[in-house]
Amino acid sequence: MSQTQRKIMQVLEGKTISPPPLWLMRQAGRYLPEYRATRTKAGSFLDLCYTPEYAVEVTLQPIRRYSFDAAILFSDILVIPDGLKRNVRFTEGHGPEMDPIDADGILSLTTEGVIEHLKPVFETVGRLRRELPAETTLLGFCGAPWTVATYMIAGHGTPDQAPARLFAYRNPRQFMRLLDLLADISAEYLIHQIDAGADAVQIFDSWAGVLGENEFDMFAVKPVRRMIDRVKQARPKARVIAFAKGAGYMLKTYRQATGADAIGLDWSIPLSFAAELQKEGPVQGNLDPMRVVAGGDAMREGIDAILQALGHGPLIFNLGHGITPQADPEHVHALVEQVRSFSG
Amino acid sequence: MSQTQRKIMQVLEGKTISPPPLWLMRQAGRYLPEYRATRTKAGSFLDLCYTPEYAVEVTLQPIRRYSFDAAILFSDILVIPDGLKRNVRFTEGHGPEMDPIDADGILSLTTEGVIEHLKPVFETVGRLRRELPAETTLLGFCGAPWTVATYMIAGHGTPDQAPARLFAYRNPRQFMRLLDLLADISAEYLIHQIDAGADAVQIFDSWAGVLGENEFDMFAVKPVRRMIDRVKQARPKARVIAFAKGAGYMLKTYRQATGADAIGLDWSIPLSFAAELQKEGPVQGNLDPMRVVAGGDAMREGIDAILQALGHGPLIFNLGHGITPQADPEHVHALVEQVRSFSG
Repeated sequence: MSQTQRKIMQVLEGKTISPPPLWLMRQAGRYLPEYRATRTKAGSFLDLCYTPEYAVEVTLQPIRRYSFDAAILFSDILVIPDGLKRNVRFTEGHGPEMDPIDADGILSLTTEGVIEHLKPVFETVGRLRRELPAETTLLGFCGAPWTVATYMIAGHGTPDQAPARLFAYRNPRQFMRLLDLLADISAEYLIHQIDAGADAVQIFDSWAGVLGENEFDMFAVKPVRRMIDRVKQARPKARVIAFAKGAGYMLKTYRQATGADAIGLDWSIPLSFAAELQKEGPVQGNLDPMRVVAGGDAMREGIDAILQALGHGPLIFNLGHGITPQADPEHVHALVEQVRSFSG
Repeated sequence: MSQTQRKIMQVLEGKTISPPPLWLMRQAGRYLPEYRATRTKAGSFLDLCYTPEYAVEVTLQPIRRYSFDAAILFSDILVIPDGLKRNVRFTEGHGPEMDPIDADGILSLTTEGVIEHLKPVFETVGRLRRELPAETTLLGFCGAPWTVATYMIAGHGTPDQAPARLFAYRNPRQFMRLLDLLADISAEYLIHQIDAGADAVQIFDSWAGVLGENEFDMFAVKPVRRMIDRVKQARPKARVIAFAKGAGYMLKTYRQATGADAIGLDWSIPLSFAAELQKEGPVQGNLDPMRVVAGGDAMREGIDAILQALGHGPLIFNLGHGITPQADPEHVHALVEQVRSFSG
């Protein structure tokens, strides 16, 4: 089966597939006992990301269970700052941490050696493409510059990303330099993933929702546009999903402004608005992950509403954010069954 | 000077005042040395809220410094769960905590004694009205049922308010009962504030942004509508500002759906959208508080953009969220001066 016959790739070309193909953000994750077992064997979280044997195994686990239409490379958006030698740590019970960067630090940042550092990721992608069923789309991914920068500035996750917003107001020149550097190295990273076998890629802008209008344009739209332009210039057939969580109203112009083929929708996006966005091209989303934890009627009704509103156009069914550790794997089975039994 | 001559009250009637009147959310707060001094004297944070002498003092401090057009009662949205005997604690360095409530706990909740418990707040309001300059609007406030419920369910603040979303999916009947109970007691609380001397009131729905479309309607819109209906039925001249932080696109219909006189805008609301919303009535906002920390060009340009976009219609100038402890009081002076020198 060629790449262009894979269902998710067809949706990314603008086709309507019924029932819609599906995958779940963070589908390789702690809700699966087999993931937890591999995680324990691997050692640290970054060891899991950088050891192809383990990364391939956890990527394949949800495909074996649920035959999702896409597998997504197991990795983390913070491998880029890790490659930039920011001393990234994932400590159990804490969020991710790294050495915070200041204005001078940005001026001396270099992308030398980053791609070399990420070689195990490309090895993982290559192995995945060989081991995955032919019909399964393989997605690569990376973080968007703004979201990655919020961690690099603060050194950790922060409410409302206030340290990065403040830094950007105080040091606009250095901050734009950081975003440009991240855009360029992330684009190169995506191109290497595509060359290694990824069918399409997703850019995660998890903290896009805290930006004012001008900042959304400068920090969220322009760097992602820069990335997508670079990727498509280098690999014209590459397809890109852009997911700006919390962007709400700003999504109106996001697809056109960034050049993304499909846009990801979080669970707070009203379905009426989602349907408008779908008129311009494929959308992906947007079930509240808490509905999967709840199961039963709450999950059924949530899925049904999305299928009714968006199932007649180009849709990749997904959650509106990553699946959480408390989700019951049986609920995911029920979800898959319900989506796959939809008939336009 | 009568209530109806106060500038903010005129804006709440739909009038355009130029330059626009202003106040800042959390204007009585840790960025002021005199606040920190009173806070230390008062003992616990709740002692500060419940001791009229101290609560009056900190409410007046920013008025003395900046002659803001409104003073807002110094209190906290969690005095309602405190009155409901949920054992609310504010510990230094932690966020607020309380005993989490479960489905059975909701069924046995009673509002008996809550208003009695909050008598010191009404005493504070009364003293404030007597001590404030005649031209200063006095605002009362409370939390919206959804936002208050997120704390009651989890027992503390939570990322994305996942525990409350999950609880609502699992226990829809009990959750609606909690929201109704909170709406009713909060409306009564606001009516008492108005009777004690508050000119208008603001309802804070700080976590409205994490709700899906149906949930926004059921959890954020309907309970606030219920509150505003009750308040206006009891006190027809009462004016209400509703601030649903993060609601983004959903604000389109929020004013009409809730019956609020003015709607508060957070800093992520694009000014073009804000201008549309202003066509339907007064708006309040929406400078990024980090611009006040940064000062200089970042603050000046942010203020200017708001004044240009919204200064020709009914506007209460404010921040898009509370001012933060790192803000320099001198920057606030510059902000006030810039807003007051605006000439249509």
